[in-house]
Amino acid sequence: MFAFEVVDSLPGPDGLPTLGRTGTITTPHGEIKTPAFIPVGTKATLKALTPADLAASESQAVLANAYHLYLQPGSDLIDQAGGLGQFMGWDGPTFTDSGGFQVMSLGVGFKKVLAMDAKGIANDEVIAKGKDRLAHVDDDGVTFKSHLDGSMHRFTPEVSMQVQHQIGADIIFAFDECTTLMNTRAYQEQSLDRTAAWARRCILEHERLTEQRADHPYQALFGVIQGAQYEDLRRAAARDLAGLGFDGFGIGGALEKERLGEIVGWVNQELPRDKPRHLLGIGEPDDLFVAIEQGADTFDCVTPSRVARNASLFTDTGRFNITSAINRRTFEPVQDDCDCYTCTHFTRAYLHHLFKAKEMLASTLATIHNVRYIVRLVDRIRQAISDGHFYPFRDEFLGQFYSTRA
Amino acid sequence: MFAFEVVDSLPGPDGLPTLGRTGTITTPHGEIKTPAFIPVGTKATLKALTPADLAASESQAVLANAYHLYLQPGSDLIDQAGGLGQFMGWDGPTFTDSGGFQVMSLGVGFKKVLAMDAKGIANDEVIAKGKDRLAHVDDDGVTFKSHLDGSMHRFTPEVSMQVQHQIGADIIFAFDECTTLMNTRAYQEQSLDRTAAWARRCILEHERLTEQRADHPYQALFGVIQGAQYEDLRRAAARDLAGLGFDGFGIGGALEKERLGEIVGWVNQELPRDKPRHLLGIGEPDDLFVAIEQGADTFDCVTPSRVARNASLFTDTGRFNITSAINRRTFEPVQDDCDCYTCTHFTRAYLHHLFKAKEMLASTLATIHNVRYIVRLVDRIRQAISDGHFYPFRDEFLGQFYSTRA
Repeated sequence: MFAFEVVDSLPGPDGLPTLGRTGTITTPHGEIKTPAFIPVGTKATLKALTPADLAASESQAVLANAYHLYLQPGSDLIDQAGGLGQFMGWDGPTFTDSGGFQVMSLGVGFKKVLAMDAKGIANDEVIAKGKDRLAHVDDDGVTFKSHLDGSMHRFTPEVSMQVQHQIGADIIFAFDECTTLMNTRAYQEQSLDRTAAWARRCILEHERLTEQRADHPYQALFGVIQGAQYEDLRRAAARDLAGLGFDGFGIGGALEKERLGEIVGWVNQELPRDKPRHLLGIGEPDDLFVAIEQGADTFDCVTPSRVARNASLFTDTGRFNITSAINRRTFEPVQDDCDCYTCTHFTRAYLHHLFKAKEMLASTLATIHNVRYIVRLVDRIRQAISDGHFYPFRDEFLGQFYSTRA
Repeated sequence: MFAFEVVDSLPGPDGLPTLGRTGTITTPHGEIKTPAFIPVGTKATLKALTPADLAASESQAVLANAYHLYLQPGSDLIDQAGGLGQFMGWDGPTFTDSGGFQVMSLGVGFKKVLAMDAKGIANDEVIAKGKDRLAHVDDDGVTFKSHLDGSMHRFTPEVSMQVQHQIGADIIFAFDECTTLMNTRAYQEQSLDRTAAWARRCILEHERLTEQRADHPYQALFGVIQGAQYEDLRRAAARDLAGLGFDGFGIGGALEKERLGEIVGWVNQELPRDKPRHLLGIGEPDDLFVAIEQGADTFDCVTPSRVARNASLFTDTGRFNITSAINRRTFEPVQDDCDCYTCTHFTRAYLHHLFKAKEMLASTLATIHNVRYIVRLVDRIRQAISDGHFYPFRDEFLGQFYSTRA
C-alpha cells in the first residue's frame, strides 16, 4: 500500500501556478504530510536520540543508509529482526537510500559540499584514479572497499534492491551513479546512460522481490534523477524515468546551492504531478524554501543532527555556537518559543556547561532541538502554503534567519 | 523542611529485631521511600540520560559531586541558575557529596576498589608523598590541584559548606577526611580526630549559611562516619557525631566488601534510629542486601551507569556483556520482565549493533536499563521488607544472580 495525494497547490506571487504543493504520502507504516523533513538515522539510529525523542520531535519518518546497514549489522540480520522499523524501535514510515552515494563518495573521497564548491573543474581522471580510491564503477555496478575493515564488496542494481528489501523500509531508492560537479560533461552523459540502465534493472529486480516477498509490507521504489548542473541532461533523465513506473522520484547528485531551485524546477516540470519527489541530502532553511517552491515534497539531511553534535544550534535569527562564552550565564532557552524538550526544560547556560564538560547529554539535547527546529520549520512552511501565506512567511523567516550574515 | 520516618522494621530470620527498616525521607523537593538507590549525576547530569529518562527509571533522587561542580561550571553559577535541580531540569530531591572523597582520592591516586583490595598494607608515607599527588591534607583543610587545568584550590569545612549551599541540594554532607585501608591505625586515629573537628566546623558554617540564606529551601546536613575497618573507631565516631545535631548520617571511607555488613552494623547500632543513614558509593546487588539488613537507608553508586557505558548489563542471572557474539542475533530483550524503556522496545541484537557501531544510543539504552534495574531491585527489597519476605527474596535473588559465578 503506497499512495500520494496533492492537497494544496502553491500559487506564485503573481497568482500563476508554481510547482509547489502540500500533500500526503501513505505508507504501510503511516502517513507523511508533505512537505516534510526526514531526519537521517544512518546506522538505524538517529545519533544521540532515542526513537521516543525522535517521535517527540514530530518527525514523520526516518531515513537510514543501505550501505552502512549492509556492512553493519548486515541487511540479512535486519530482515531477521523484522525489518528496519522493528529493529530500531521506530513505528512510523522509513526510507533507505540506495547506497549509491555512499559507495561512490567513499570511493572518490568527495563530499557533497566539496562538489558544490569545486564547480567547473573537469577532473574525471583525478576522480577516477585518486590514491585513496576505495570504489571502482563499471557498467554493471560498483566494487568498493568497506570503510570498516577494508573487505571488498560489490553493489549492482540487483544487490542494492536485495539489500533494501531485506532492510525493509517503506520507501527505497533505485541504485544510481552519483557524479560530482568536477566531472566533465562527457562523463555526466555516459554516467546518465548507466543510471538509466540501472533504473530499469532496479525495477525488474524490485518487481521480482516484491512478488517473492509478498508477505512483507509493500515497499515503494523511487527512481533517482541525476544530470548535475545541465538542464538538458536533468530534463531528459526526468522524462526517461517518469515513464518507467516508479512510485516516486529522488532528485540526487551534484547540486550547486545557488542553482538549487532552478535544477529542482527543471526536474519537477518533467515529472508527473501525482508522484512524490524527494530531494536527497538538503536541509538548510534557505534551500528548503527554494526547493519546496519548486515542488520538492520530502528532504533528508544530516546537517541538523551533525552540527548539533558540534554545538551549533538553530534559531530564528540564525545558527550560533552554544560553547561561546556569552552563553555561560545565559539562563534562557535556546529559543524562547520553541516547543522542544530542550527549550522547555533547559537553559543555554546548562547546555554550555554540558558541552564544556564533554557530557553525552550535550549532543542529545542539542540534537533534540535542531531536529525539532527543522521539522517544525518545514511544518510551518506546509501550514503557510495551506493558509496562502507562503511568500510573506518565507520573506520574514529568511530575512530574520540570515540577518546576522553581514 | 526535612524529616525521616521509619515505616516498617525488619525482624531477623530468628524473629529478633535487626537494624533493617523501611522509611520515608521528606525533603523540600519531595519524598524518598527508603531503602532507595540514588543514581549519581557527577556533573549535574546522569551520563547519557535526560532527566526524563531518569524520572522514567523511577529514581527518587540524584546525587551530584560538589568537587566537580565547584570546578565546572562553578557553584556560584549553579546558585545563580536557581540551584542544582533547577539547573539540570530535575524536579525531585537532590544530594551532593562534600567533595572530600574526590579531592583526596585525586590527591593520593587511590580508588575505592583499590583500597578494598590492598588491605593491611600500612603505607602512610607512600600515600602522603606519591609522585602524582595532587592534594595535601592539613588540620585546617585540603589544598588540591584541579584535574581540569592544574589550577590550585583549597577546600576547608567552611568552603565545602559554602559550595554545597550554592549548589543547593536537599541533602548535603559534612566535609571529612577519607582514608584508605592502606593507612596505619595511628593515621586512622589522627584522621578521625580531624574529621570530628571538621564535623563541628561544618555544623557551625551550615547554621550560619542556613540563616543567611533563609529564603532558600532547607538543606539537610549529614555527618560522615569514618574509621575504616576498626570497630572501636567506627563506633566512637558514630557516637560522637550522633550527638552533634546532624539531620542524618553518611557511612563513608574504606570498606572491605567482605566486612561491609559488619562495619555498617557497628555504625548503625550507635546511630539514632530516627535519622536516615546513607551508605556512600555502594551499589552491587549483594552489598545492597547486606547493607539494608544492617540498617542503611540510601545508597549512591556510579557502577550501574559506568558499567552500562562499557556494555555490561544487569539481569537477574548476573551481569553480561552485550558485545559478545552470542547477542548478535538474539532478538529478545535484555531481561524479559524488565519494565524499562530499553527492555520494552529493543532487542539484545539492536543493542549489540549499537555498541559495535559505536553509536551514542548504545550508552543511553544500556544506562536506562542498568539504572532502572538497580532502582527496581532496591524497590523490590523495600517491598519485601514491608511484606515480611526479605530473607526468602534475598536468598532467591542472590542465589540466581551469582549462580553463574562458579
